[in-house]
Amino acid sequence: MLVHDFPVRIYYDDTDAGGVVYHANYLKFCERARTEYLRTLGFENSGLRAENGIIIVVKKIEAEYLAPARLDDVLTIRSRVISIKNTSFVMEQKAVKEGKENFVMNVLLVCTSEDLRPAKIPDAVKEIFLKEMEQNA
Amino acid sequence: MLVHDFPVRIYYDDTDAGGVVYHANYLKFCERARTEYLRTLGFENSGLRAENGIIIVVKKIEAEYLAPARLDDVLTIRSRVISIKNTSFVMEQKAVKEGKENFVMNVLLVCTSEDLRPAKIPDAVKEIFLKEMEQNA
Amino acid sequence: MLVHDFPVRIYYDDTDAGGVVYHANYLKFCERARTEYLRTLGFENSGLRAENGIIIVVKKIEAEYLAPARLDDVLTIRSRVISIKNTSFVMEQKAVKEGKENFVMNVLLVCTSEDLRPAKIPDAVKEIFLKEMEQNA
Amino acid sequence: MLVHDFPVRIYYDDTDAGGVVYHANYLKFCERARTEYLRTLGFENSGLRAENGIIIVVKKIEAEYLAPARLDDVLTIRSRVISIKNTSFVMEQKAVKEGKENFVMNVLLVCTSEDLRPAKIPDAVKEIFLKEMEQNA
Repeated sequence: MLVHDFPVRIYYDDTDAGGVVYHANYLKFCERARTEYLRTLGFENSGLRAENGIIIVVKKIEAEYLAPARLDDVLTIRSRVISIKNTSFVMEQKAVKEGKENFVMNVLLVCTSEDLRPAKIPDAVKEIFLKEMEQNA
Repeated sequence: MLVHDFPVRIYYDDTDAGGVVYHANYLKFCERARTEYLRTLGFENSGLRAENGIIIVVKKIEAEYLAPARLDDVLTIRSRVISIKNTSFVMEQKAVKEGKENFVMNVLLVCTSEDLRPAKIPDAVKEIFLKEMEQNA
Repeated sequence: MLVHDFPVRIYYDDTDAGGVVYHANYLKFCERARTEYLRTLGFENSGLRAENGIIIVVKKIEAEYLAPARLDDVLTIRSRVISIKNTSFVMEQKAVKEGKENFVMNVLLVCTSEDLRPAKIPDAVKEIFLKEMEQNA
Repeated sequence: MLVHDFPVRIYYDDTDAGGVVYHANYLKFCERARTEYLRTLGFENSGLRAENGIIIVVKKIEAEYLAPARLDDVLTIRSRVISIKNTSFVMEQKAVKEGKENFVMNVLLVCTSEDLRPAKIPDAVKEIFLKEMEQNA
């Protein structure tokens, strides 16, 4: 797998009175997509927490809104890891509609313990991410 | 089809600091499920509005919270029409997890014009709902 | 105090593509109003949990949507306790705009322990609620 | 006024199962703060749209999460304009709790017509922003 694709259907609760998807909701879609990406690799948020005492926390985002999305649209959230360190990694995530990008974001994610101190990325996760990145290179 | 089943995965944004799904979010899940139910019957919210000038509006809800749901759970939203009039209909919707009900709601929905006055349910929708109800009887 | 009034300003994130407040958000407004009501009585959600091991959980709602609210509106959420038992109480909550009701709800709330089993309403809270109800009678 | 301060109380619906404010919700808080900032200057979102045919749209964000916020916290959203062009402006917005920054964001906002094409910032708004920036310089 070079990238992870996750479909998001736009419902009324995703939109605002401007008739388009409310800007903050793209961050929700991306978080859901990251969760599903990890799940396809065998890791669940609740499992990482219960078994490894690990929470994955958003530390930085740089995002650009390119085109609006609307009610009943289907967006594909396309995610890939672009760099990785001991306790953090960066993902690029895009919302794509019919081949056109609506939204792009680089997000720095940090592994933390339950008291929110930086913690090592579990080896099993790191290994897979490194492999994914090699395939993307 | 006797009922319409729609799966909802629980993500961080659905939960609250109590560790469970925030109570108002069940209404979102049910709204998404109604939207998908209509879509399987050939009707989209955006199409009903553009072509028929119709919006479907929540008028009354009676809901009971039976058991909490948590991060990474998958709920099935089970929806069926239980009565229908000229401009309104009632649906029963349940959130079910592993065969157990978490949430049940009866919701009265009204068809309105864009200025929110009651409007006739489109005949095509009404006919299908009546057939579904017969099958459920 | 006969009722507790809490103002809610409507922002873009409260609205949907129908141009009105998304129906589920009234439940958020009411929850915020209940929180502020308790705060005026000297109780905080986080304190009730930390000191009494108590969470207040929504068990049942009966709600009616009477008129839409829109961007930049200010709603008053008007809350009062209408009955109380050992582990639960019922509040009536209304959203009012310029003297007109937009939304009314009766909500059954249950005190629970952190593992979500019913728990006695703290005496201090119950006493105050009973006094408020007397004044309302 | 050198900066605009807007208080945000944290309610259950702002938090997630990690026990902290869900990351996307800071964008909501900042949007509410921008709305109130404009309101203090005499401009409402609904008025700008009805009278000037103008919507203010988020185009880019660069945000950093510095410390978590929790249930019952009060954050101050501190906003100031840091640059302005014909159709766009940049604001710096911070969430501050007891003098400590929880969240900082630079946001590029674009004025658009209702069909989302770039439009001139209304002169009255631009003039005030320029004055505010002078005072901040």
